[in-house]
Amino acid sequence: MCRWIAYRGETTSFEPYVTEPEHSLIAQSIRSLQSTAGSNGDGFGLGWYGEHPEPGLYRETRPAWSDENLRYLCRHLRSHLFFAHVRAATGTAVTRQNCHPFACGQWMFMHNGFVGSWNRLRRKVEALIPDAYYPSRLGTTDSEAVFLAMMGAGLENDPLRATEAVLQALVGLVNEDGLRERLRFTSAIANGRDLYAFRVSVNDAANTLYFREDGGQVIVVSEPFDKESDWTEVPPNHALIARASESVKIVPFDPAISGDS
Amino acid sequence: MCRWIAYRGETTSFEPYVTEPEHSLIAQSIRSLQSTAGSNGDGFGLGWYGEHPEPGLYRETRPAWSDENLRYLCRHLRSHLFFAHVRAATGTAVTRQNCHPFACGQWMFMHNGFVGSWNRLRRKVEALIPDAYYPSRLGTTDSEAVFLAMMGAGLENDPLRATEAVLQALVGLVNEDGLRERLRFTSAIANGRDLYAFRVSVNDAANTLYFREDGGQVIVVSEPFDKESDWTEVPPNHALIARASESVKIVPFDPAISGDS
Amino acid sequence: MCRWIAYRGETTSFEPYVTEPEHSLIAQSIRSLQSTAGSNGDGFGLGWYGEHPEPGLYRETRPAWSDENLRYLCRHLRSHLFFAHVRAATGTAVTRQNCHPFACGQWMFMHNGFVGSWNRLRRKVEALIPDAYYPSRLGTTDSEAVFLAMMGAGLENDPLRATEAVLQALVGLVNEDGLRERLRFTSAIANGRDLYAFRVSVNDAANTLYFREDGGQVIVVSEPFDKESDWTEVPPNHALIARASESVKIVPFDPAISGDS
Amino acid sequence: MCRWIAYRGETTSFEPYVTEPEHSLIAQSIRSLQSTAGSNGDGFGLGWYGEHPEPGLYRETRPAWSDENLRYLCRHLRSHLFFAHVRAATGTAVTRQNCHPFACGQWMFMHNGFVGSWNRLRRKVEALIPDAYYPSRLGTTDSEAVFLAMMGAGLENDPLRATEAVLQALVGLVNEDGLRERLRFTSAIANGRDLYAFRVSVNDAANTLYFREDGGQVIVVSEPFDKESDWTEVPPNHALIARASESVKIVPFDPAISGDS
Repeated sequence: MCRWIAYRGETTSFEPYVTEPEHSLIAQSIRSLQSTAGSNGDGFGLGWYGEHPEPGLYRETRPAWSDENLRYLCRHLRSHLFFAHVRAATGTAVTRQNCHPFACGQWMFMHNGFVGSWNRLRRKVEALIPDAYYPSRLGTTDSEAVFLAMMGAGLENDPLRATEAVLQALVGLVNEDGLRERLRFTSAIANGRDLYAFRVSVNDAANTLYFREDGGQVIVVSEPFDKESDWTEVPPNHALIARASESVKIVPFDPAISGDS
Repeated sequence: MCRWIAYRGETTSFEPYVTEPEHSLIAQSIRSLQSTAGSNGDGFGLGWYGEHPEPGLYRETRPAWSDENLRYLCRHLRSHLFFAHVRAATGTAVTRQNCHPFACGQWMFMHNGFVGSWNRLRRKVEALIPDAYYPSRLGTTDSEAVFLAMMGAGLENDPLRATEAVLQALVGLVNEDGLRERLRFTSAIANGRDLYAFRVSVNDAANTLYFREDGGQVIVVSEPFDKESDWTEVPPNHALIARASESVKIVPFDPAISGDS
Repeated sequence: MCRWIAYRGETTSFEPYVTEPEHSLIAQSIRSLQSTAGSNGDGFGLGWYGEHPEPGLYRETRPAWSDENLRYLCRHLRSHLFFAHVRAATGTAVTRQNCHPFACGQWMFMHNGFVGSWNRLRRKVEALIPDAYYPSRLGTTDSEAVFLAMMGAGLENDPLRATEAVLQALVGLVNEDGLRERLRFTSAIANGRDLYAFRVSVNDAANTLYFREDGGQVIVVSEPFDKESDWTEVPPNHALIARASESVKIVPFDPAISGDS
Repeated sequence: MCRWIAYRGETTSFEPYVTEPEHSLIAQSIRSLQSTAGSNGDGFGLGWYGEHPEPGLYRETRPAWSDENLRYLCRHLRSHLFFAHVRAATGTAVTRQNCHPFACGQWMFMHNGFVGSWNRLRRKVEALIPDAYYPSRLGTTDSEAVFLAMMGAGLENDPLRATEAVLQALVGLVNEDGLRERLRFTSAIANGRDLYAFRVSVNDAANTLYFREDGGQVIVVSEPFDKESDWTEVPPNHALIARASESVKIVPFDPAISGDS
């Protein structure tokens, strides 16, 4: 059960969102409230867009709470669209390549969830990645494999449909042979302009997801970082759409029910 | 508030004591019970005696819970006297050189506690280290400085008296100018044959300390790693003496009261 | 171009072989002589057999030359059969899981070489790993994939035949479509009793391999660690067989020429 | 013998100066040409000024050549004044706190050199640090101690005079008792506007130092990163002064000769 935050809005330093709040992501790395994991000390990552079409990444294996570099970067980096993520590993190794966010071309992705029985389903999920994207498989997580499958399914052309196509394939895999493995997919993707988030689960409860919108600013989080009342919960099996210069839309998104979006 | 375990007895692998118990030190690195720190994820260390007079060390900055090397070493290393320690930093950096145990000559030392107002007192504590031992100051912790001061005070000749002399000096420092800074010193030292542990505090409550004795085997811990009833608590301001081939003795040890041991 | 050493003989500490010689593996990590890589600073590893059937491992991402833990372990660990390896990465990430040796069941493996055009051939090589061994794929190197394919081909029953079968499959892959990609495979495997080493290349020169035999002691190295004259070069496309209690045998081993061993 | 680069000029990404040149600092981390160290793989660091008065830092213990984060940051960070440094340790530990640059208040500092017989002189050099700056001593290097002594000597008011005062004290220490220890001090300091560099040695040859000036842009380096002819060598025992909006001045700076600047 990882914790993450995504920001889209005016160009800002990351500090007021990642390190300074009372219940900041750094505080959540030590103790999260709405998660079974307790601490999220298995590495972390930042991803952000600046003047290049592709994002920058800073990923480290040590816990976020003791990383001086992270504090410096959150204070000095500036972006209009950034991700931050603290990891609680669910079986795969603690390496930088297994830390979120993941980047591929202009897209980046981060995830809180898992594909049940990963050891059994890993090959089948990896088989969803087209050859063209397989060299981008730098780590061994389920999250990265799902992201690269989404890239292969056309994330660049139609993010919702590509994500849905991959999730439908995953639903097929976890339900294979009547096994009804669990699948949790609470994630965010972005391309430098648009931000999307998903709260999906199959055969299981969904990991929490909240957002706050204020003018053109949108903040999406695993759990609120302050006690203000203006956080809205995204319902299970819904997607959040925050396209550049548009207001947030929350739409049903349930790949388990139907193949038609 | 760190957590640690010290073992002296038949030559054994570390596994049954460090990684396998229900509430093992690894489990305590994720969540300790008798400590305010919660997790102890700021590095860890092993120290052990084998066929050489000086100990071996394995210290790492990542959390103990995700370190594959630690599991391999706890399974494959064998020793008749070893220390294991998981760290919750109290202000100094997370580096290997700041992880416990510390080694100097034939001695090793590990600690759970702190010298209050370390930034203010650091120079004065470092001044307790004789020149001959100052090159052994590889890190920046209060713990290492206290250990090297103990070495300088004659640990090799009279461990109890040397420890008492340094603690009396520390009591003087924390009580300087009527400030009554806090001092907690729950620690273990060994020289390859004899094991000593201390539970001391000044102007504060003492960190917990327990032991279990069975035949020639002595295990000393910050908190019990199982629910058996044969753990004995060491009272505050007492020392545990477990010399080679002797039974455990618990003796008063209160440097704040008197200069005579 | 990595550098490695394998030892089989009387139980010993690793020091006289890994850290102390004039041109030790540690010295080779800073500057090797018979390699194009120069430094080998992309991590390192130790693997050894003790009282358990499966080996212990210590693998780290930092350069061998600055790792204090490595010096302690080489001094304090003891084994009758151990591997040590310093890595010069050929494209895959510097993670512990990509450092050698690799272990699977009772076997361990280390490698100096590469599969040409790994990005193109990776999927095909990974497809050689049977499902039963795919959960053991913890990293992303060509070396680990080849090892797990060897495990799947029956390393436990017939090490030479299993290795040959996998290399023949690799020869097929590198020669596919007339592309004649390069393959270098200078490696060692062991099971706690027997030690085997291979010096093979296809469409390329072979990486160097030497050994020294003295009584029941066998040392196999990428390049000699001293200037003594009793090192024997293993010819290209040959295997070294050092079974427990037997003398070294050097036998032709050229999977490119023939499918019959 | 470390290698470094300092930049002051138009706001730029670091890429064209740190990672892209033919003989970039990253290339020098693998193999430098004008240094006895060969590789500089004992950690690295970036320091830069943005919209805050104090600098940001990114320091890591792994070699620069394999750090993905470094490449991302050099591409995405932008600054008008930045430092980059690759380290070849001269005896102190490989920790982030021992990597350059060091920061204190608005100042940052990086160094290529050493204080001879550091183990013997360490206490005396640390005694040059006033109490007010001693809590900023996070590591154990000679470089950081010298920097904090410079801060204490008034770097903020008169950088040249403060540096000279500390170097004169160091000259006194290395020449104590007629021992004539060696001292090499090729360093850079900056405060967000002004950049200073020093090439000084006592009882020894001076480490190399070059600069290139083009309009308002000044680049100072340990060794040129390309083969262009417009690099100028700073003579031994001289200082480079590059104040904001001023041209570079090279002035004599020899603390061994005289106490008057």
